[in-house]
Amino acid sequence: MAKKTNMILLSGGSGKRLWPLSNGVRSKQFLKVLKSNDGSYESMVQRIVRQISESTIDASITVATGISQIDSISNQLGNKVEVVAEPERRDTFPAIALATAHLFLNKKCDRDETIVVMPIDPYTELGYFKTISEMVEAVENDEASLVLMGIKPTEPSTKFGYIIPENKGEHKSRVSRFTEKPSEEVAKELLDNGALWNGGVFAFKLGYMLDIISKYMPLDSFEKIKSNYDKFPKISFDYEVVEKSNSIAVISFSGKWKDLGTWNSLLEEIPENTIGNVILDEKTSGTKAINELSIPVICLGLKDSVVVASADGIFIGDKESSVNLKSYAESVDARPMCEERRWGNYRVLSYDEYEDGVKSLSKILTFNNGGSVSYQTHNFRDEVWTVVDGKGKLVLEDKISEIRRGDVIKIKAGEKHSVKGVENLQILEVQIGKELSEYDIQRYDFSWE
Amino acid sequence: MAKKTNMILLSGGSGKRLWPLSNGVRSKQFLKVLKSNDGSYESMVQRIVRQISESTIDASITVATGISQIDSISNQLGNKVEVVAEPERRDTFPAIALATAHLFLNKKCDRDETIVVMPIDPYTELGYFKTISEMVEAVENDEASLVLMGIKPTEPSTKFGYIIPENKGEHKSRVSRFTEKPSEEVAKELLDNGALWNGGVFAFKLGYMLDIISKYMPLDSFEKIKSNYDKFPKISFDYEVVEKSNSIAVISFSGKWKDLGTWNSLLEEIPENTIGNVILDEKTSGTKAINELSIPVICLGLKDSVVVASADGIFIGDKESSVNLKSYAESVDARPMCEERRWGNYRVLSYDEYEDGVKSLSKILTFNNGGSVSYQTHNFRDEVWTVVDGKGKLVLEDKISEIRRGDVIKIKAGEKHSVKGVENLQILEVQIGKELSEYDIQRYDFSWE
Repeated sequence: MAKKTNMILLSGGSGKRLWPLSNGVRSKQFLKVLKSNDGSYESMVQRIVRQISESTIDASITVATGISQIDSISNQLGNKVEVVAEPERRDTFPAIALATAHLFLNKKCDRDETIVVMPIDPYTELGYFKTISEMVEAVENDEASLVLMGIKPTEPSTKFGYIIPENKGEHKSRVSRFTEKPSEEVAKELLDNGALWNGGVFAFKLGYMLDIISKYMPLDSFEKIKSNYDKFPKISFDYEVVEKSNSIAVISFSGKWKDLGTWNSLLEEIPENTIGNVILDEKTSGTKAINELSIPVICLGLKDSVVVASADGIFIGDKESSVNLKSYAESVDARPMCEERRWGNYRVLSYDEYEDGVKSLSKILTFNNGGSVSYQTHNFRDEVWTVVDGKGKLVLEDKISEIRRGDVIKIKAGEKHSVKGVENLQILEVQIGKELSEYDIQRYDFSWE
Repeated sequence: MAKKTNMILLSGGSGKRLWPLSNGVRSKQFLKVLKSNDGSYESMVQRIVRQISESTIDASITVATGISQIDSISNQLGNKVEVVAEPERRDTFPAIALATAHLFLNKKCDRDETIVVMPIDPYTELGYFKTISEMVEAVENDEASLVLMGIKPTEPSTKFGYIIPENKGEHKSRVSRFTEKPSEEVAKELLDNGALWNGGVFAFKLGYMLDIISKYMPLDSFEKIKSNYDKFPKISFDYEVVEKSNSIAVISFSGKWKDLGTWNSLLEEIPENTIGNVILDEKTSGTKAINELSIPVICLGLKDSVVVASADGIFIGDKESSVNLKSYAESVDARPMCEERRWGNYRVLSYDEYEDGVKSLSKILTFNNGGSVSYQTHNFRDEVWTVVDGKGKLVLEDKISEIRRGDVIKIKAGEKHSVKGVENLQILEVQIGKELSEYDIQRYDFSWE
């Protein structure tokens, strides 16, 4: 039986290449659009964690991410993973360093234990994890300080960095050199020389990374490292660790491996032509439509197109153009209209600005049973809550009460309040004020027990 | 100076060929998508009434329509027109008969006065109204009992009925015969014989129509005719009046005349490529997009397409396919999500059904200053109103009070209530109940004075 492997999964930033399903707070890896074995929908992160559990790796998983993703990860992965959140976004080296320090200082892992670092969102198959097992074995056998996965290229892509092995065509080899994203011409030459894509999967012993971290700060307290996080250089793991190492091996993987980062690539992996309330006529072809809204979408005579509607917006594009979506979506300067939170989720229903500068915003809040928002006040807005379903508990100015469907609660600016879901709690919230911002919040200690 | 002309404008049913802007209650003729002279948007009915006022016709306008359109007509045309609403939808002969009876019995028009009947929504130009003046003159000079407008065809259309004049090519002629919508082959022959499209414009003396009506019921009381409205046959004016007449003339009109009944034809007349919050990339061509939602629409690489988003749904089609929209839109069985009313308008924000069968619905109600809903109760739902803007008056269980932004009103099932807009009143309404239907309403007498 294999030993326990510490896996660090890097969960990257938001990005808007899959807008309007991904938005400023909802990253693509959390979209539940992939079919799992039992026919239900799962997200990229759920798929990866499921695949790890189905592999022969006895993994202990730590997700390295930013603060903004903690709620989504906890909602989607629960206690299957630990989360180490960067206090601020820097780059992959600091993120991996912090997660490594957590393993050493909090989890008391041994310097001799093997660490595997990988992205949280490749779309791949079980053979990928078999390759990881081989990488772990190579590290354990001290074949190299650092072992990388090399993805067998399917085309002379200009989107990836390349690993050039010493022994062309061998399954396992020492690494001769690396190149950054090449031109297409150079990529074709690289392919002729047996070069492999750098898929961002690294295996090494904990102690190897600890030695590098200790060049920047002492490894005595995790909290201290976290509070000095801004002292780490903004540099990638590739530059700081990989390119400086003189003992690197690569093991090649030639199975399915994709970045589902554009609508075109993602929709290829979705078997259905439609998800949600969508009608396609029989003249429509090569087209997929996803509708998260409750209102219907009717598509007539579309060819090779993508249609996606969510509370944040509507995207319609021919498949080819969908790769250019990012910059257009980034030009849209709107608040996120739906968001997953630790306590449940919310969806914005309306936003209005009035002649006198006052604004109103309405939201549906859906609480997980047992989920509660922090005890809080707002300076610039009143809120009116109408309980539309279920039961919950309210604390308003230190007074606790039970709430249920039909109850209406008025919360004036400055009044302390919190609410906890007990059973299917759903609240329609109306905010009214001169400034309606997620930043207008002061939090207070409160215990429901 | 011309004498006063009584014009009856027929405002037809709902239809969904312009879904999702038109819905079960919002007919295409009320969509404000046409540019008026001053650059603001006007609807087809507003355009027609404006054009009549700009013509030399001294018109007194009566709109013949169904009950469901009274509020839209009054909101868009105000006191520029009178409205005669059929108690139930039958066909064009009964509708015109009722409006004629109104002119005779309520407006005390003389049997000798001229009546012009026309559709409320042709997209045309001032020459059209000049032709109408000529028709009126022909009636006044007793050149024929019935004078029709013949539209000079631009193609062998199979969508229209044809008028075959006795004297091919003459501007004014006796009518030889009519044909129903022909095959394309027959249409080509008709064109060779100088046939004209029947545009549904008729001029005659009031007495002429009164004689026909009196075959069905006595012309003694408008209210009695209205309450016996179901005794009129369900038959078109063409069948009951035109085809039975033996003194018919036609005057031809050869200017711009279109039915803006499909997205393809309507969008040709809209100069802008986008209306509302829409981004089109530079690869998009031949495409127009209308977005009534507040969330953005991004279109990339679309060719010859139509994109329309409203609170009722989203339509995306290539222009050619948009003519087939009607049947698809009719298959969508959803309540209207926005509606113009006499007192203002509403927009549905959310609708949810819960496990125990209870439902919730939220709406934004925007009141015209002075506009008020009827004094009413609901049997099956409670309502919570949050005033989000402006000022109004509330009557709840016979008690009148003033309401303003921030006020919250709870209305239990069975409680009598009404509200009146005073200044920019906007209310967010949450309905909760086992049955949420526009029909769950009992109305009571109440006077705000």
